[in-house]
Amino acid sequence: MRFLGLDVGGSFLKGAIVDPSGKVEERLHEPVAKGSLEELLAQLERAVGTLGARAGARALGIGIPGIVEQETARLRHAPNLPVLNGFALAEEMKKRTGLPAFLENDANAAALAEAWRGAGRGSQDQLFVTLGTGIGAGVILGGRIWSGKSGYAGEVGHIQAQPDGPACGCGSRGCVETIAGIGGWVRRAEELLVSRESVLRGRPLDPEAIVNAAKADDGVALEIVDGAAAALGVGIGAVLNLLNLDRVVVGGGVAAAGEFLLERIVAEVRARIFPQVFADASFRLAELGGDAGVVGAARVAMVGLAA
Amino acid sequence: MRFLGLDVGGSFLKGAIVDPSGKVEERLHEPVAKGSLEELLAQLERAVGTLGARAGARALGIGIPGIVEQETARLRHAPNLPVLNGFALAEEMKKRTGLPAFLENDANAAALAEAWRGAGRGSQDQLFVTLGTGIGAGVILGGRIWSGKSGYAGEVGHIQAQPDGPACGCGSRGCVETIAGIGGWVRRAEELLVSRESVLRGRPLDPEAIVNAAKADDGVALEIVDGAAAALGVGIGAVLNLLNLDRVVVGGGVAAAGEFLLERIVAEVRARIFPQVFADASFRLAELGGDAGVVGAARVAMVGLAA
Repeated sequence: MRFLGLDVGGSFLKGAIVDPSGKVEERLHEPVAKGSLEELLAQLERAVGTLGARAGARALGIGIPGIVEQETARLRHAPNLPVLNGFALAEEMKKRTGLPAFLENDANAAALAEAWRGAGRGSQDQLFVTLGTGIGAGVILGGRIWSGKSGYAGEVGHIQAQPDGPACGCGSRGCVETIAGIGGWVRRAEELLVSRESVLRGRPLDPEAIVNAAKADDGVALEIVDGAAAALGVGIGAVLNLLNLDRVVVGGGVAAAGEFLLERIVAEVRARIFPQVFADASFRLAELGGDAGVVGAARVAMVGLAA
Repeated sequence: MRFLGLDVGGSFLKGAIVDPSGKVEERLHEPVAKGSLEELLAQLERAVGTLGARAGARALGIGIPGIVEQETARLRHAPNLPVLNGFALAEEMKKRTGLPAFLENDANAAALAEAWRGAGRGSQDQLFVTLGTGIGAGVILGGRIWSGKSGYAGEVGHIQAQPDGPACGCGSRGCVETIAGIGGWVRRAEELLVSRESVLRGRPLDPEAIVNAAKADDGVALEIVDGAAAALGVGIGAVLNLLNLDRVVVGGGVAAAGEFLLERIVAEVRARIFPQVFADASFRLAELGGDAGVVGAARVAMVGLAA
């Protein structure tokens, strides 16, 4: 028995055939055709044909960078894939491919993948946080994704970390994401470089360069990294004080900064939660890397089929 | 069939006999005997005798202002009842009374009571926040209390609302409780009265007096109330962005300030969460008042017996 996972990103479509143990047997990776709804649907249908036909997949899971309203199986609030806004994608894909199809938010799918086969193994109650342009997250309770009433659960990136912080696209200000998202790193670097010396001056500002400079003890870089870690400390700390979970998994592109960043995040979380709540939680870097989205989507299909 | 609920507070012991529909049939209310463990146990045993014998109670539920580790059924971190720290109270009470006995944190018990018979009726996924000296909370997911690994779940009062705020007893700073707990109201009043005119000058500073002054448009009082509401907005907003719940119930002594305070809290929450997340949640004042603790404790017994 095989399951097909598609991870439809704002830039790339990834796909995989996954066996029941979570092993990836085939992969697909191509620019996403998001010019029109029909173009995108045709691309997804082709992807299912290419990957699925050979392997005899039993069901299709699709991860999407947007909110999935589970009651109606419709997408809402998909700013990076506006052609899909309000569309009942699972139903349409079932029509086109004949496969039972299930939809999930991409961060939730990645959370499920890490919980199943990655850094979340062995824990039933955990938080997955993905660090990138945005701060995504998935909450796993009792081994299952907690979606909330309309699928908005997991918005750790929009917990307020600084009451007087930068305005956020969500309408609030000082959200974790405005400080710890990639845009926050760059904005803070630009602010500090106005008046401070740093090896970052004149270089392209991305999290990797900033982390490397911080590792070399550059003061400006350290301040940026520590600011991001503090904002994440507020957000993750809030989650742990609220839910007393036993695992936190940190993934996403920025998490490639590795233990250096994770240690700083953990220190900032620790400063904000009860000692017992800290002792209860283990903090780990995600293990599945670029496969998390497709493995999670396949797992969504597997769980959906069994339900 | 009847259930006995005891609410052991830092100052008072309350008790009630509750019928299966949640109706309170008998009440008990007396100063708590917390001089020694033996004294307290004897008082609880007497209370069970007084209330329980007449009604033929089937089980005993006990609410406690401390952390209850569900795995071991022991109390941890009970600063207001230090004689109970580390004690296996349920087991001891079962020995003394012959009744199946169940232990729960008092805010969790009150949350369960409101969810069952109060302002949380009809919702399976909700947050109960109790405003008093401290900020307590209970999280109900799928109709059941979410306790977390060691029973610490629900610590909304220790979500960080102001990164540079007042030091908190928990070791962090700027926790919701340091601003929105009664001590926070008084501290802010004293700070503002140093340099500002207000009808509060020379009066005893308690939340009721401050809310009344705020209702009469006193600038200092309004600033205190709005500061508390903003801190609660950060904490409750964090919970809703994380869990996308459908109900928030606000109770506790300070909630007697009623709609005036609730409206301000709701406005501050609204400013910090996604419009859909706001639309999904209804906000209500608690309905059970002083009965919440005992009704919740009885409900804990009822649920425990059925499990």
